[in-house]
Amino acid sequence: MAKSIAVAGVTGAVGQEFLKVLADRNFPFSKIKMLASERSAGKTIEFKGKTYTVELLSEDSFEDVDIALFSAGGARSKQFAPAAVAAGAVVVDNSSAFRMDPDTPLVVPEVNPEDVTQHKGIIANPNCSTIIMVVPIWPIHKVNPIKRIVVSTYQAASGAGAKAMQELIDQSRDVLDEREVRKEALPHQIAFNLFSHNSDIGPEGYCEEEMKMVHETRKMFHCPQLAITATTIRVPVLRAHSEAINLELTNPMSPDEVREILSKAPGIKIVDDRQGNYFPMPLDASGKDDMLVGRIRQDISRSDGRGIDLFVSGDQLRKGAALNAVQIAELLV
Amino acid sequence: MAKSIAVAGVTGAVGQEFLKVLADRNFPFSKIKMLASERSAGKTIEFKGKTYTVELLSEDSFEDVDIALFSAGGARSKQFAPAAVAAGAVVVDNSSAFRMDPDTPLVVPEVNPEDVTQHKGIIANPNCSTIIMVVPIWPIHKVNPIKRIVVSTYQAASGAGAKAMQELIDQSRDVLDEREVRKEALPHQIAFNLFSHNSDIGPEGYCEEEMKMVHETRKMFHCPQLAITATTIRVPVLRAHSEAINLELTNPMSPDEVREILSKAPGIKIVDDRQGNYFPMPLDASGKDDMLVGRIRQDISRSDGRGIDLFVSGDQLRKGAALNAVQIAELLV
Repeated sequence: MAKSIAVAGVTGAVGQEFLKVLADRNFPFSKIKMLASERSAGKTIEFKGKTYTVELLSEDSFEDVDIALFSAGGARSKQFAPAAVAAGAVVVDNSSAFRMDPDTPLVVPEVNPEDVTQHKGIIANPNCSTIIMVVPIWPIHKVNPIKRIVVSTYQAASGAGAKAMQELIDQSRDVLDEREVRKEALPHQIAFNLFSHNSDIGPEGYCEEEMKMVHETRKMFHCPQLAITATTIRVPVLRAHSEAINLELTNPMSPDEVREILSKAPGIKIVDDRQGNYFPMPLDASGKDDMLVGRIRQDISRSDGRGIDLFVSGDQLRKGAALNAVQIAELLV
Repeated sequence: MAKSIAVAGVTGAVGQEFLKVLADRNFPFSKIKMLASERSAGKTIEFKGKTYTVELLSEDSFEDVDIALFSAGGARSKQFAPAAVAAGAVVVDNSSAFRMDPDTPLVVPEVNPEDVTQHKGIIANPNCSTIIMVVPIWPIHKVNPIKRIVVSTYQAASGAGAKAMQELIDQSRDVLDEREVRKEALPHQIAFNLFSHNSDIGPEGYCEEEMKMVHETRKMFHCPQLAITATTIRVPVLRAHSEAINLELTNPMSPDEVREILSKAPGIKIVDDRQGNYFPMPLDASGKDDMLVGRIRQDISRSDGRGIDLFVSGDQLRKGAALNAVQIAELLV
């Protein structure tokens, strides 16, 4: 059962989380290769009591590798994933490079685990905002198909990598100490501020992050017509994303029915204490595997009982990236 | 023309902003009385080159006062506004105490200035989240009536007062210096976190802040049936609120038409640079009078062309509170 694995992009924020998740879940591996770009090759990494030297990610990195976990950016995935597949590895890729490729399954294990079997060497991990949305809405969709989604996100700095997390910390100090704020990882000040996700804006005025939520959800749900509008916003939070989700369902459904469905669904913890005014918060979701789901209520703007509002927080690095990829790898074992 | 004015709650975050706005706009006053509760009475305040002593807010405070600007909390408004009216003053009240009273006009000068004339001594200033939403959507509604609104807010600490702003600063330092975080003004950690607005949750699962957005918008628009669902979230930003607004209109309308309408509307600055990826940010809105409006796009989840998405940032203390109240006072002069 134990597999020879490789982690490409191991020194990044998601790469580091890959290692934590592999250790936490006791993933059965016989060997593990730590791979990264030139900047990080030669560094050492402690993992499960052993010291590893980071090797340069190259086309020759994948001999005898069974499963390669990639989180080294889209360009490196495009360059090196085919070499990994040619060497006999199955790639679980966290970048956007292959997500919409018809030959590449896009998988959230709580949603469409069966799609893993269709792979031709590469399985794609969805975008973090998509994962955090689909885990709580899929169980509802199975019972009462979703017709339309209006979603607004509150996305943590971690989604832009370890440098953006550090930039949030550095800028916060700069603001508190009344120094000029320096911007490198992110185009706008993130400390005590927020801004529209800075991916490119397409012809319809939606940014790439928003269109990922649209296209990836449709692909995983096998619902090419599912109606979705998204507004994606970066907020000064370190590592968990939150989302305000408004659902239009096919049939009327009460909040109690939704709560009942979600209480039995995998990967979800209901945090919905109206009396105590305690609901999902990114601080509580950070470092946790479960999506926190709350503010479950009937949409009062609809008189037909077919609207449900939710608020969700989920760890971007964990379920939004590393955990989901390792869960996919577990499906392969 | 010059009026004798009083500012009740002058030492609070909004009270201080009242003074700035009165000075900035050269509001014509003959006398100004600084009023606050026992905790602040006796303090001195510099205003337009003169030193004022803060007097205790009481039922006897309003002799010879023409206009009283109140921002001392709902309980004090309920206690002292009737005395001010009895003494002959017109009260512009920033609290929620009288907003839904049928005898009290609720006014945003860009939306329903004519309602001011209906007052019986008190005019209410809407909730900040409501003001920031209605300024950009009213000009659209006038041309193409809005049928339904789905709104998610990103609300600054200032909405919970000066103490909450200080708490965001103090907690941010505590987190950066790895000290335990202290909570007093807000029930949950706000630094590097966010949470559902902590007003009481009603029977339908909506918090008071959300229901204010529903009821106040309906009242000002004179549309008792307008369908609105809101999710209100407090974010670690100091003083400007942002809102992701999804509109269902009566008739199809293009983003260009919306942009054209908003470019001529008062109190709005369009910030919608798709190529430069520059959109409304609370940092840019802070201290400004205009609502910043951007991310104007057709809602791709609707095939009938009747959906529009917007993202708005507006200063909570200024247009969200003090500026709007002073604009109401200007309508009275």
